[in-house]
Amino acid sequence: MNFRIIKNDGLARIGIIETNRGTIHTPCFMPVGTNGTVKAMTPEELADMGYEIILSNTYHLYLRPGHEIIKKLGGLHKFINWHYPILTDSGGFQIYSLASLRKISSEGVEFRSHIDGSTHFLTPEKTIEIQLALNSNIIMVLDECIPYPSERYYAEKSLTLTTDWAKRCKDYFEKKKNKQALFGIIQGGIYPDLRYKALEELIRIGFDGYALGGLSVGEPKEEMYNVLNEIAPSMPEEKPRYLMGVGDLIDVIHAVDQGIDMFDCVIPTRNARNGTLFTSQGKISIKKSEYKDDNSPLDPQCNCYTCKNYTRAFLRHLYMCREILSMRLNTIHNLYFYFQFFKKMRESIYENRFTEFKLKWLPILEKNACSRV
Amino acid sequence: MNFRIIKNDGLARIGIIETNRGTIHTPCFMPVGTNGTVKAMTPEELADMGYEIILSNTYHLYLRPGHEIIKKLGGLHKFINWHYPILTDSGGFQIYSLASLRKISSEGVEFRSHIDGSTHFLTPEKTIEIQLALNSNIIMVLDECIPYPSERYYAEKSLTLTTDWAKRCKDYFEKKKNKQALFGIIQGGIYPDLRYKALEELIRIGFDGYALGGLSVGEPKEEMYNVLNEIAPSMPEEKPRYLMGVGDLIDVIHAVDQGIDMFDCVIPTRNARNGTLFTSQGKISIKKSEYKDDNSPLDPQCNCYTCKNYTRAFLRHLYMCREILSMRLNTIHNLYFYFQFFKKMRESIYENRFTEFKLKWLPILEKNACSRV
Repeated sequence: MNFRIIKNDGLARIGIIETNRGTIHTPCFMPVGTNGTVKAMTPEELADMGYEIILSNTYHLYLRPGHEIIKKLGGLHKFINWHYPILTDSGGFQIYSLASLRKISSEGVEFRSHIDGSTHFLTPEKTIEIQLALNSNIIMVLDECIPYPSERYYAEKSLTLTTDWAKRCKDYFEKKKNKQALFGIIQGGIYPDLRYKALEELIRIGFDGYALGGLSVGEPKEEMYNVLNEIAPSMPEEKPRYLMGVGDLIDVIHAVDQGIDMFDCVIPTRNARNGTLFTSQGKISIKKSEYKDDNSPLDPQCNCYTCKNYTRAFLRHLYMCREILSMRLNTIHNLYFYFQFFKKMRESIYENRFTEFKLKWLPILEKNACSRV
Repeated sequence: MNFRIIKNDGLARIGIIETNRGTIHTPCFMPVGTNGTVKAMTPEELADMGYEIILSNTYHLYLRPGHEIIKKLGGLHKFINWHYPILTDSGGFQIYSLASLRKISSEGVEFRSHIDGSTHFLTPEKTIEIQLALNSNIIMVLDECIPYPSERYYAEKSLTLTTDWAKRCKDYFEKKKNKQALFGIIQGGIYPDLRYKALEELIRIGFDGYALGGLSVGEPKEEMYNVLNEIAPSMPEEKPRYLMGVGDLIDVIHAVDQGIDMFDCVIPTRNARNGTLFTSQGKISIKKSEYKDDNSPLDPQCNCYTCKNYTRAFLRHLYMCREILSMRLNTIHNLYFYFQFFKKMRESIYENRFTEFKLKWLPILEKNACSRV
């Protein structure tokens, strides 16, 4: 993996990540393909929109169908028919949020599957082994994602473990010699000094990229922005900076403003399935009865398949009927909107007008669309 | 609407229906788009496979979003973005199978919506009015679909009503002067003499096509085949003959052998969502654990998007995860399989080898595929 910065505009920057599976233009948004599928979409549809990388979840794929099977069948790209870069997380976050009976020791974490209750033990080495088997392009270290709020004492103790695990991940990864990239994850809760310490120790170990983890876990926005503002500009400039699990576009703007390069989030896809759609006029809740005979496209300024071919009235009808096509058309629109948003954001940075971009978009993102256009 | 027969092979025949929305090659299969969407599919995907006509349900569209809204928005084709022929049923069948509190009188039928329990009254005139508002290309008369088993006495009484309603539908339809086609529906249960009587009376009224209704409602196959064999060859030769709600391909072969031209059924789409897939080797239940590491395509002889791009192992994985993409890929395959089946059947009739076609396919359709290919 190779990363270079093309242009800065304040702390914001655009760059290019090169992998053996293709190029990624940053700042980038990675749609989430939990089970190896971005819900409701084919891989071709994502590529046609312009997406260059997706995220997939190690925890889910490890439990079902199992990394051994995916390896045997030729790796994750072949299995899911997506031939561009894939980033896999370490499984840590899902263990803390989905699994039951988590027992954390210095060795690793024992947990019970949310699917069948079976018991598993994940170590730093094991998570790397799984991700190597999946053969994703960017793999993440195992970390402990602490809840909000967490006492400083606990955050500090947890960080010692997370740092130790990061080192073990790196050691195991190095031993295995391969072409993938390994990213470290900065934890430390809402305590900037702990975050700094975490970052310093990760830099000492040395990674291909650095991620901010454990944010957007329920803390007030100010706390998140505080950590971001303190830490992001200190993350190594020459490496990709990844803000994990954050995808609210207001947060994205704020984070890019602090120099973040990569994002993933279920917001565009999950909201789509729930009928919340992003438009150039603000958010729309398609189930509202005011759309029942609205013959206009969802977003007249949008060129996606959904907006080019269907009316709000039909989208509302499909949503009310809980039709699969509702989830498809809504997901197409939201992911298209996200891609275009990121594209325009990159262009604004390239042309030194990111401030203008922010001023234009922040008010739109904060409001609901008026009922008719 | 214009219909002409191209070729006969025994009683089987191929023909062409011309409508102002396009041509339909018969024998044809009509995918079912209950709420104005063939579940999991876009209209383009159906057209790309070759489908020339879909069926949509008057009952569902009348209740949601309402025919007035669809009319106001430009008709059903525009609303759902399908620009080829559409056949709508009369709503009768759904009233008998879905709605509660059915009160049938000579005037019409009162029922309660399965969605919100609201009370509605459907008359022969109203069902035509709704279908004219939808602006579908082929519209069906209101009939009473009697259950199996039904006493002869009841079947006879019901038929009097059905015949009266057919007449009223025709009268109302004629009064409205338009370019749509109106089909009559032959009822009469499993009693061939009643079916004959029904047919005679419908012919006296005069329709653009004739349908066999009230079959595949739980009766033994022999009873269905008995009615088919007795009645189908007597249906007017120069008009399309439609066997309603039947789509098991063994039944299709049998019916085409008796001169039937049109079919609709949820079998390919519903089975797809439930993981039952049709292949050139027989049926496959994709959830079986034997497919968990099966790297072969679902059907090596199939050229559909699913078979060209995915393995049985991935299809099984998607199914086990209940992913939307599972329903999409399975539906694509089954509908592609159905279209190709009908296409090959038409070719066999054209080349006077329908018997050969039957002998080849009947054993395949009866068996489950062996586990590996």
